[in-house]
Amino acid sequence: MAQNRTDSPSRQERRKARTRAALIKAAQSVVAAGRLNAPILEITQAADVGMGSFYNHFDSREQLFRAAVDDALERHGNRFDEWSACLDDPAHAFAQSFRLTGRIHRREPALSQVLFTFGLAMAAVDNGLARRASRDIDRAVLAGRFVVPDTDLAMVVVAGAVLCLGRLLHDQPERDHATSTDHVAQTVLRMLGMPGEEASEICQRPLPSLDDPP
Amino acid sequence: MAQNRTDSPSRQERRKARTRAALIKAAQSVVAAGRLNAPILEITQAADVGMGSFYNHFDSREQLFRAAVDDALERHGNRFDEWSACLDDPAHAFAQSFRLTGRIHRREPALSQVLFTFGLAMAAVDNGLARRASRDIDRAVLAGRFVVPDTDLAMVVVAGAVLCLGRLLHDQPERDHATSTDHVAQTVLRMLGMPGEEASEICQRPLPSLDDPP
Repeated sequence: MAQNRTDSPSRQERRKARTRAALIKAAQSVVAAGRLNAPILEITQAADVGMGSFYNHFDSREQLFRAAVDDALERHGNRFDEWSACLDDPAHAFAQSFRLTGRIHRREPALSQVLFTFGLAMAAVDNGLARRASRDIDRAVLAGRFVVPDTDLAMVVVAGAVLCLGRLLHDQPERDHATSTDHVAQTVLRMLGMPGEEASEICQRPLPSLDDPP
Repeated sequence: MAQNRTDSPSRQERRKARTRAALIKAAQSVVAAGRLNAPILEITQAADVGMGSFYNHFDSREQLFRAAVDDALERHGNRFDEWSACLDDPAHAFAQSFRLTGRIHRREPALSQVLFTFGLAMAAVDNGLARRASRDIDRAVLAGRFVVPDTDLAMVVVAGAVLCLGRLLHDQPERDHATSTDHVAQTVLRMLGMPGEEASEICQRPLPSLDDPP
């Protein structure tokens, strides 16, 4: 009995986690389809959970979408970390992740769109990509690669550039997203204290392919 | 009769403009009070117009809020233009307007809040402040003060920095907004091609007071 009592909450926790994951996955499909006005009922049906279960986990559709976007950004962040694990230079790691982040706007336009539709990324300043960028800046400062007196203020420029770049690429579909992203990345590296020529060189290095399976 | 026929639409246009202005003014009060969930009925009552009139002008509350924010930014932009009219150096004009814009976040927290609640500013890339900043950058490039190969990409960093600075000041109420804004302004000036020492000096110059009556 004692064993059962200990197990029960854990089983319940696992069931709750599964329900939450199903809702997030369904929301990601809805977001990817650009259907930001989809009724909650449609999302719960796609997730195969009841309406009551929805409200056990989220207060609103917006809150679910935010969780779905956070989850997607976290997964991207994990991939970026794997790719930069083999790099000795934290400034190179920062630049590589920034350049890959910019490329996501065209690759996942729906994810990008939801960021400015709900202003989610601005709310979620501790999202998976922003948190890692901030960490990489601190590492590069310690390694003497960046000169940044205030990481939070540097992140204002870094995060703002990523978000507004998404908006620009959305507004100007003919614009080359790779060239534009790398140009902004260079600008950001100079802002972080890197000499112009080196910033230019580091932004021309080959990138891992987002097409490769994670 | 012919005269009447010409006048009538004009009178109607004026009435429409008054109704629209009343709705925008009411929306600005609602936004300033932080009541972003106020029902449309409450806004139309405050504006003393009928619900039908609302839908003649706007499709949704969000659209009205966007117009209200655009109107507020346009008024700020007009003031900034008056203040910079006497400056010979377009780089100084750009820096002054940027530093004043940053200060609006603390001065008008509700206006600032609405930008990231609805992500409006990201949608309205041609808002009154962004449009003027872009114009000032082009002028400073022509005057040989900035080196900017692509104004749209420079604006990605400028607009992003302004928006995310607002978010940071909101999240960190103890942070000195003037010092932080001027630090970001310096960073942005360096990014636009100005030498570091000059960027620092230009961001320490006295500013017009936002408290002065327009």
